[in-house]
Formats: sequence, C-alpha cells, structure tokens
Amino acid sequence: MAPKKTGKATVKFGNPPVIIGTGSVVGPMEGRGPLAEDFDAVLPDMTFGENTSEKAERKLLEQAAWIAIERSGIDKGMIDYYVAGDLLNQIISASFSARQLEIPFMGVYGACSTCAMGTAMGSMIIDGGFADYVLVACSSHYHTAERQFRYPIELNVQHKETSQYTVTGAGAIVLASSGSGPKVTWATTGKVVDLGVKDPYNFGAAMAPAACDTLLVHLADTGCSPDEYDLILTGDLGIIGSQLFIELAQEAGCDVGNNHRDCGLMIFDRKAQRVGAGASGCACAAVVTFGHVLKEMKRGSLKRILLIATGALLSPLSFQQGESIPGIGHAIAIEV
Amino acid sequence: MAPKKTGKATVKFGNPPVIIGTGSVVGPMEGRGPLAEDFDAVLPDMTFGENTSEKAERKLLEQAAWIAIERSGIDKGMIDYYVAGDLLNQIISASFSARQLEIPFMGVYGACSTCAMGTAMGSMIIDGGFADYVLVACSSHYHTAERQFRYPIELNVQHKETSQYTVTGAGAIVLASSGSGPKVTWATTGKVVDLGVKDPYNFGAAMAPAACDTLLVHLADTGCSPDEYDLILTGDLGIIGSQLFIELAQEAGCDVGNNHRDCGLMIFDRKAQRVGAGASGCACAAVVTFGHVLKEMKRGSLKRILLIATGALLSPLSFQQGESIPGIGHAIAIEV
Repeated sequence: MAPKKTGKATVKFGNPPVIIGTGSVVGPMEGRGPLAEDFDAVLPDMTFGENTSEKAERKLLEQAAWIAIERSGIDKGMIDYYVAGDLLNQIISASFSARQLEIPFMGVYGACSTCAMGTAMGSMIIDGGFADYVLVACSSHYHTAERQFRYPIELNVQHKETSQYTVTGAGAIVLASSGSGPKVTWATTGKVVDLGVKDPYNFGAAMAPAACDTLLVHLADTGCSPDEYDLILTGDLGIIGSQLFIELAQEAGCDVGNNHRDCGLMIFDRKAQRVGAGASGCACAAVVTFGHVLKEMKRGSLKRILLIATGALLSPLSFQQGESIPGIGHAIAIEV
Repeated sequence: MAPKKTGKATVKFGNPPVIIGTGSVVGPMEGRGPLAEDFDAVLPDMTFGENTSEKAERKLLEQAAWIAIERSGIDKGMIDYYVAGDLLNQIISASFSARQLEIPFMGVYGACSTCAMGTAMGSMIIDGGFADYVLVACSSHYHTAERQFRYPIELNVQHKETSQYTVTGAGAIVLASSGSGPKVTWATTGKVVDLGVKDPYNFGAAMAPAACDTLLVHLADTGCSPDEYDLILTGDLGIIGSQLFIELAQEAGCDVGNNHRDCGLMIFDRKAQRVGAGASGCACAAVVTFGHVLKEMKRGSLKRILLIATGALLSPLSFQQGESIPGIGHAIAIEV
C-alpha cells in the first residue's frame, strides 16, 4: 500500500474517492445571482413552507441530500455514512436531517469550512476501506445565522461594509469508492490560525491567514506549484480577505493572483445585490463548489482545482468574552 | 487487505489503533466521587484560575490533552490530527484548545457521544493509513452547560428528579498505528433515533432507544454475543435511561443485565452527591472510559469492553420550537 500520509498535514488518496452525485439548493437571492443556472433548485421564498427559518434550513439540507442521492443513481440504503454539519448551535440542521435520512451519522463542525472538512473525512473513510458510499452535506440560512450570531433580521440592523452576507442554501455530494465523476485526490487539514482579529464583522480578515497557511502547507506537502491548479478557490474570504490572502501568499513567495477566486465573491453580484464584502456561510463554499465548479469541470473548462474552505471558529459568547477570532482552512483537491 | 466494512454500520480495524496515552481531568465534585483515584488531575475549584467558566473548560481540555500527550511518550509535533468536540455553541472549547495545540484540527459534534465518535474517526484515520498519531479529546463543564442549555447556576433553579448532572472534566487519548496499550478493534456508528421524547429534563429516556439500536446493530454486524464483552458501557443514560436500555435490549432478545454499566451512574455517588438521575456531558463517558475503565483494563480486571456513548442532539432552540429530542449512540470496542 502506497503511503497516504504526505508531509505535515496532507493525505494523498491511494484510490481517490469519486463524486458520483451532487445536490445544491439555494435561496431566492442566490437564485438571482450570477451562478443561478448551475444550482439544482432555487427556493421561491426563505421559509420553504415552514413556520420557522430553522425548519426551513433543515429542509433545504435534506433536499440537497436527496438530490445528490438521486443523481448518484444509488439507493439511500447503500450509503454507509452521513457526514454533515451547519452553523447552528448543536448543529441541529445536520442532526435533524440525519433523523430523516436514517443513515449512520457523524456530525462535524468547521463553521464555513465544513464542506471541505466533511469531504476530507468522507474521502478518508472511503479510501481507508471503511465504506463504499458516503454522503457529505452542509447548510446555512441567512435568517437563522443572523438571529444566532448577530441580530434577528426583524431589527433591520445595518450591515457594515466589511460584513459578509450568509448564503441561504445547502450543498451535498455522494462520494464513492468507484464510479465515474471528478475525484478527490488530496486533502490538507488546517490548523487553527489566529492573528488577533477581534472584529466579528470582518471574518475575511480573520480567516485569510488560515487559508494562506493551509495553501502553503498543501503546496509544501505535495510539491505542487500554484500554477498546477486551474483554480485555487477559497471558501468565503470576501473582498477584504481575498486581497489579504493574495498578499500573504505573495509575501511567502507564492503567486496565486492568476488563478485564485473566492466563492464568497462569485455567488452574488456584490454591488448590485448589496452584500457588503461578499458572501459567507457553510453553504457558500458548498453550493459554489458542488453546484457551479463541479459543473464547470463537467463542461471541461476546469480540470484540477484546489478548494480551501475557510471557517471563523468564534461563538457570540467567545466574542463577548473578549476573545479574538480563530480561523481555519481545510483544503481538498478535485480532479477530472 | 481484509474487508473493514462489516455489516450495516460497523468497521473492523485491520490494524487496530493502539491507545498509547490517556489524560483525564475532572472538577472538584467528580474528585469526591467513587472513581476519584483513577483521574489524572482533580481541580481544586470550578474556575481553574480563569475569570469565566468557558475559559476554565477550555483549559481543562488542554490539560487533559497535554497529559495524554505526555503519557504517550511522543512529541506533540508527531501528532497528525486533533479530533475534538464539546457541548458549547460552535464547539468553542475544542476550537480554542486547537488554537493552543497547533495540530491540524477536525471539529466534531455528537453531544455526549463525542468521545466515541471521535475515537472511531481517529481510528479510521490511523487504520486507513492517513496518520501515525491522532489525539482525540472532549470536555464539558457543569456551569457552562447549565448556562447554555438551562439556567445560569446563579439562579439556583431546582433540578428535577429525572435531570442529569453535567460532568466537569475532559478526557483525551492518543491513538497510534503501533505501540503497546489497549486497542480499538471495532467501531459502530449510530443512526439518529427519535421516539418522540420531548422532556429536556429526561435525556436518559431520549437516548436509551439510540443506545439499544447501536448495540443491536453492533451485535448483528459482528456476530458477537453480549457475553463476549466483560463490560457493555453506556455513556450517560442515568438511572432511567439505563433501565430502559436493559428493557429495550431484552425485548429484542438480548440480555445485558449482567455486564451493563453506565458511566453516568459510576462517576458520582448518586444519592449522597444528589445528582438526580445520574451524570451526563461529553466528559462523562470520556473520563470514566479513558480514566477509570482503561486503568481497570491495565489492572487486568477487564479484557474486552464495548463503549456505547450516547448523545441528545437537541438545542435549546429546537426544544423551544416544539421538536422532540433526537438521540444517537456511537460504539467502540476496546480490547487488551
């Protein structure tokens, strides 16, 4: 068996797991954004027929999961594990969706980095020989996130220029030990990096150092140069974090100016849709990657991408207690 | 390579990961309980020199992690992954401890089942060939849990008879691909089971069906009989949940009356220490298993145990919105 552990924090999959099905569901505003056509379903409203936004979020997550299962062409009963997470306290969206799906469940939390961390874990489970099929999913919802992390939307509090707008949506993939589709070839697990940013309305700045750290570790571990990727995609750094990410990488001698894009800058028309510094939320990296980017790969315009999904690991309480915002970035390479 | 996937939801580790180091740290009340001598450190007070209970909890977690690393005899730098979780919103205890430990971090959430889920994931990472060393840890704190899930302790709200008392403590283990120590031989990942219990002061009843489901799946998947285990240890069912667990198992034709014990009934002297129906919290199963039970295995009184750590996957919000309490149980078998 070839060694899978590579360098400090990277895994090279011996038998790269295949993404055999994807599902992406988004809210109405995402459905008016530039990537709308690549999402599998767009909700007509934010409540999705439910009486609370939290119930709407878990329904979104379930729908994305069901679409991914359907597209994969396998029966739900064949799926060995469901790896999922979300932003809500006690990851209730994921847990309640697991109740409906009835698949052995592993709950994960990486804030907005969850889709990459879940995919890395799911890929290890498959490549390690522990499963044939793993469902990975995550969700976020603008109303539930605002209420929990900031202010209920009913208060209509003005956003700051540096604030990011939480994506309403859910993304899911079915990973398989064989089949046809793009493959997860590498995974680099991030360390927590905290440079002392304390502004909870500037997540981009808090997360950029972690994204850069993971990029540099990934490149050192794999021996790849940034140019070998058609796209280096960060999760939700927004405009401020993206600029910082490029600068930090450049300072370390790594030029990503040509092939870097940020999911948080792709999903909305930032100015027309008035989303501050860009988008964020677990669903941001998930629906842009699983919805748009994987479809681009299918269309042939991208062959090899690196997703570095980023998370701000604060809670309202840690912020109130004067703590700075720890950031993390998890990377996965996907190739066709 | 022998097949590792066994039955519906069970994994048989081909090269069973070895627990080469353990750490268990508890609060003052746990330090006056029946298992006190087996814990590595007992805090003199609940604040641990910090100005908030949340900071005390993360310090506890870090201390348990450091003890496990020290006992393992390896350098921290050799550890590939840190898999950790806790009960607090956005698992801040785990995330902030990861900031201090500077090890690639995977955050997990399984409520009080976290120690078994983390151990299963860590074992897959090692047996899959992705790491040589994985640190697994979790924590809980009576004051932080009361404040978040129920009422701040300053209000001195009376507990119900069915309530369980959150353990203040943290448990950690270092898993290795080789070395000497007890081995993790099987892992069975639980499904979410919800029989409609809505009383947030009766977690035992909400979690017992999930524990029983996981036990039955484990036995069916492995072909083991309950008697083959010296101990079938549930996480924190308490007195009500334990009785229900035994009854549910019996109804399914499985007699565990002889060798079942519950961590939630072991850590305190329930009557003298006035802890209602027993103990709970992420740390409950963690410190009882990693502290007491693994030391019993070392002393030779136990050879083969099955831990089914249980979690109640509610949030205060899901309860307020009228939802019932989803339960989960994750099982790991440990052998010497």
